[in-house]
Amino acid sequence: MPPPTDATQLAEALFAPRSVALIGISDDASKTAGRPLRFLRKHGFGGAIYPVNPRRETVQGERAYASLADIPGAIDHAYILVNTPAVEEAVASCAARGVAVATILAAGFAEAGAEGRQRQQRLVEIAGATGMRLVGPNSLGVVNTHRGLTLTANASFLTDALPKGRLTVISQSGSLLGTFISRGGARGIGFAKMISVGNEADLSVGEIGAALADDAETDAFLLFLETIRRPEEIARFAALARRAGKPILAYKLGRSEAGQELAVSHTGAMLGSDIAAEAFLRRHGIERVDHLETLLEAAPLMIGRAPATADAARGVGVVATTGGGAAMVVDRLGMLGVEVAVPSAATAARLKAAGIAAEPSRILDLTLAGTRYEVMRAALDALLAAPEFAVVVAVVGSSAQFNPELAVKPIIDCAGHAKPIAVFLTPQADATLRLLAEHGVAAFRTPEACADGIAAYLRRKPPMPAAAIDAEAVARARAVLREAPGEVLDERRSAAFFAALGIPPVASITLDLDGTLRPLPFPFPVAAKVLSADIPHKTEAGGVALAIASPQELGERARAIVATVRERRPEARLDGILVQPMSAGIAELLLGYRRDPQVGPVVTVGLGGTLAEIYRDFAVRLAPVSPDEAAEMIAELRGAPVLSGFRGAPAGDIAALAAAVARISTLAQLPEVIEAEINPLVVKASGVTALDGLVRRSPP
Amino acid sequence: MPPPTDATQLAEALFAPRSVALIGISDDASKTAGRPLRFLRKHGFGGAIYPVNPRRETVQGERAYASLADIPGAIDHAYILVNTPAVEEAVASCAARGVAVATILAAGFAEAGAEGRQRQQRLVEIAGATGMRLVGPNSLGVVNTHRGLTLTANASFLTDALPKGRLTVISQSGSLLGTFISRGGARGIGFAKMISVGNEADLSVGEIGAALADDAETDAFLLFLETIRRPEEIARFAALARRAGKPILAYKLGRSEAGQELAVSHTGAMLGSDIAAEAFLRRHGIERVDHLETLLEAAPLMIGRAPATADAARGVGVVATTGGGAAMVVDRLGMLGVEVAVPSAATAARLKAAGIAAEPSRILDLTLAGTRYEVMRAALDALLAAPEFAVVVAVVGSSAQFNPELAVKPIIDCAGHAKPIAVFLTPQADATLRLLAEHGVAAFRTPEACADGIAAYLRRKPPMPAAAIDAEAVARARAVLREAPGEVLDERRSAAFFAALGIPPVASITLDLDGTLRPLPFPFPVAAKVLSADIPHKTEAGGVALAIASPQELGERARAIVATVRERRPEARLDGILVQPMSAGIAELLLGYRRDPQVGPVVTVGLGGTLAEIYRDFAVRLAPVSPDEAAEMIAELRGAPVLSGFRGAPAGDIAALAAAVARISTLAQLPEVIEAEINPLVVKASGVTALDGLVRRSPP
Repeated sequence: MPPPTDATQLAEALFAPRSVALIGISDDASKTAGRPLRFLRKHGFGGAIYPVNPRRETVQGERAYASLADIPGAIDHAYILVNTPAVEEAVASCAARGVAVATILAAGFAEAGAEGRQRQQRLVEIAGATGMRLVGPNSLGVVNTHRGLTLTANASFLTDALPKGRLTVISQSGSLLGTFISRGGARGIGFAKMISVGNEADLSVGEIGAALADDAETDAFLLFLETIRRPEEIARFAALARRAGKPILAYKLGRSEAGQELAVSHTGAMLGSDIAAEAFLRRHGIERVDHLETLLEAAPLMIGRAPATADAARGVGVVATTGGGAAMVVDRLGMLGVEVAVPSAATAARLKAAGIAAEPSRILDLTLAGTRYEVMRAALDALLAAPEFAVVVAVVGSSAQFNPELAVKPIIDCAGHAKPIAVFLTPQADATLRLLAEHGVAAFRTPEACADGIAAYLRRKPPMPAAAIDAEAVARARAVLREAPGEVLDERRSAAFFAALGIPPVASITLDLDGTLRPLPFPFPVAAKVLSADIPHKTEAGGVALAIASPQELGERARAIVATVRERRPEARLDGILVQPMSAGIAELLLGYRRDPQVGPVVTVGLGGTLAEIYRDFAVRLAPVSPDEAAEMIAELRGAPVLSGFRGAPAGDIAALAAAVARISTLAQLPEVIEAEINPLVVKASGVTALDGLVRRSPP
Repeated sequence: MPPPTDATQLAEALFAPRSVALIGISDDASKTAGRPLRFLRKHGFGGAIYPVNPRRETVQGERAYASLADIPGAIDHAYILVNTPAVEEAVASCAARGVAVATILAAGFAEAGAEGRQRQQRLVEIAGATGMRLVGPNSLGVVNTHRGLTLTANASFLTDALPKGRLTVISQSGSLLGTFISRGGARGIGFAKMISVGNEADLSVGEIGAALADDAETDAFLLFLETIRRPEEIARFAALARRAGKPILAYKLGRSEAGQELAVSHTGAMLGSDIAAEAFLRRHGIERVDHLETLLEAAPLMIGRAPATADAARGVGVVATTGGGAAMVVDRLGMLGVEVAVPSAATAARLKAAGIAAEPSRILDLTLAGTRYEVMRAALDALLAAPEFAVVVAVVGSSAQFNPELAVKPIIDCAGHAKPIAVFLTPQADATLRLLAEHGVAAFRTPEACADGIAAYLRRKPPMPAAAIDAEAVARARAVLREAPGEVLDERRSAAFFAALGIPPVASITLDLDGTLRPLPFPFPVAAKVLSADIPHKTEAGGVALAIASPQELGERARAIVATVRERRPEARLDGILVQPMSAGIAELLLGYRRDPQVGPVVTVGLGGTLAEIYRDFAVRLAPVSPDEAAEMIAELRGAPVLSGFRGAPAGDIAALAAAVARISTLAQLPEVIEAEINPLVVKASGVTALDGLVRRSPP
């Protein structure tokens, strides 16, 4: 096979090679560099295997080739197992020999500082010269269970039987391959393909996923992510997978600062914001789960089921043979903000007709009715048919362990329903878990993962239509930007910039620095601030005066501002005193826009003020967003109630706020802007007003 | 055995009966009411077993007695398996026969409405007449693995072997017995005693626990709670367990509103606040865990290890054979606010001397050093000896599955250290989990439970000294209370009440309702409020005016207030116009005190204002608290940074705030007060001032 020129060829070279070379394979099958040969033989790989080791005639009882040149046929896929310093030469020999794909085990590249980055760059250049593709470095290998391809050094592949199945795993952690092979194997969850992508020097999560989007053996993709590399390729992968009707689930590290730091040091990735990464995944319909095992367990909820439209019911129905077991799931769902619904009167009537009399409750507890096939079956039929439920949870207690025919069999018999069933078994019941897995039912080992999986299922949405861009507004804003000097716009120009975008600024006039009064086009009381692009934090510089009641006071305080600022910031250029009306509204918000180093343009909206900042109450999306998506962001804020008439206060103009969020998000069309912020944006009963803003552009 | 008269006799009758009667035992061993006989035989219970069934001569091949009267010897423990309507008669026959303890399976009592409560009350009265004790109703039974006592109807006891061990389970959910027997059995975690307490009509979680505090076969207690019943007995249990050096761990439902509601409907318990229950558990040194499996897994961290003192290091050290696996735990710990520490220079030097060169990082990643006994052992020795770590986490990857001698054996060899090791194995590795359990090492199946267990371990604290009560202040407050009319104190009397307790109110004078001016002892601007015990929500009634600048304005606005309030609330009695200085401070807090229906007096402190209320940022403790404990509460607030000089603002007087919290918490000494609140309490750079308050006492 020559170097791949399209996705089909790439997928074949990666996962269906006719021949593999093991470069640097050890004679000791228990060593990391000896394992791949042992595993390939153990799991019956059908292609040609060429051990390469210049220092031995045989390796693990097989003929060893001294070099790639000695190998007779074509080499589709080489696994380079040599130590870091020898990798470059091995890659060069692969390229020279016309290998299609080389996977590199060794670490010590981009994650190991500047020298490592250079070493990695050289590998990419060598491979690029011939079109050879690289996996890694720092890759624990590539697996295709359906062909016995266990081109991996992960010790878990010592297992006697590979759990074959229809889930494909793409992981930035090599360790995860073993975690899932062993955990899945214990309970009948099987895999199609698995790949440890390592540093993604060449092939990325996105490109590999895109090559597998139409893979006939894959129903769903599971991603283990430490960072986001090449987001545009992941976006393409996600679009192809959606077209093919295959869900993508992701577990991503970096939810805490410590986790973020580790991801950076562990992978050599750039530091992006986790919340921006989450916005990226969400935009592309990649469902992030919170618990590791949810990634293994939740896919059957989503396979073959398109996301529900916004107007569909979102309630969860719960049926259980154990009230206590079900309560654990319901409590957890409540913590995640998922609504567990009480059956409607129609559903209750249907249950009653089936002989199941139950109090109206969030849990249809079958304890009294008895754990029998007919009872569970009738209950499931009723809940699955009920329009108030989007998903049904079945919690089975002790009977699941020794008598699955009682309450588990009816679940399996209902598994083909358009509405998914999520199962939580309270006892250890591996055989029953296997039975459920074989029938494509999502079963969970813990109440926490069960709730996590359901929440992920319910978060799914059809893709939003692309946000409409007001090209004229963008052009006007660009014109303001072009006329302004420096990297940071002063407050007057920032106001003009946002006004050009369509976000109304507060009225203002500018006084000379000597405080000479002019007639104001708005009434007292007013605020006065120093106008200077050099002073973004005006309060700390003594550059702000509030609640000025009269012309006389305005003059005095304007002069005081100038004196104080000149003393504190003698180097700053001052351009005047900006005077604005004191503007009070229903709430003060913060609108932000910036380019995230990992995922690109993002827009933020949050409640303003110190406490909101401390409580980190904001919503983030990839920019641009439509007003609809902006409204969704606003509704997500925990502090959203202050906008909709809290405790008898008037309601704010949420539509105007959403429009402003959408407007600032169109800055994605102005690549020269690296950061923009309006803080505060006052939301009034009618309309919004930007009180203060900041625009920063990239250096010229 | 006669009815028990002390804890030793009670524990014996419950868990070491010489004879058991099975009342209403079914001939069908697969039916719920047939299982206990089958289980007792299967697991080799050594005492006498008396099946009682008036309708059959034999049951499951054994002689059946028609009634208790026919049984020859004494009956220590009867399990009543009959249907709800027949329970009362069965209990009466047990009492008449001199049974020591009767456990009741049937549901349909206190959890089933008013009639059920009456039925339950009658059972208690019948038993009380002879001193017989009751477990349940709604109890799935009682287990003592060491004696083959499986007096339970939980289907999981069909298992061939009971996992024997030293953990004792006291559960409000009967289902949990099976959950833990099967899950523990699969991985070598064993139990001493297990009991399903049901509705706790007579014997409660606390009394049963207290009877087992000195049990020679129990090292730790695991509680599964849906509610808190008889808190004073749980408190006594906790004190006895602490004296015996035995940790108590708890998993409690009710963290969400849906979960709370369920707990109430499922158990017939009163609705208390979950956060108050958490305060109760914490006060008594009962460690609450967040994940179900943590309850099964975390005890070995705590057994034999007293809580660390406040000045001890709190850092977590992490060593791993898989960086990705460790990152999952570290990320999760970060989400829980647990500090994962980087090894100190001394520790790094020690590691280097042992041949382990590692970058300074939160994870000591042994990937490069290799997965070998000596490497892991040296790393553990170094981390366990390092004073910067309170606990060590060892994450073992694929080798844990097939080669525990490499990285798991050294963990076992270090298990006796005073510092605990928490283990997370990334693969499925049941045999290795069993090995770890046998050696008393805390091993976790998921990164989430691992982090949860570590957080619970680190939260442990020695008991706080009892809060000192200022009896004179309490007496002064009581005197104010006695002189006030009605259930709610008006604002002036509330201020006097809090002043008596030692919390300084804002200065104020009272004007007549006609607004006649008097000289003010404080400067303008001032605030004016209507004085009326009938109007707790003054703003909504139009009864407040702020920022009044002059005497003339005061008179006008006072009259306007009276006019508005008289129009809106014509029935309210108005006692004057309260005038106070406008008081600004560094932050506004809310102080609350109330009697929780489950756990009694609790004190709350939180940030004031709308947003803080929405974000639910408050800390709760059982009252009374010492100023030290109050300071701990304040430090817990997410908004605490606003008190300590946020963004260059001055710092607030946290000591005065803590003193005020401690003072309001002494209301626990005034049972007639059911609720008291100061909102806001202004915290200044020096001192605090109560601006507004409310006191409600029980109806006379």
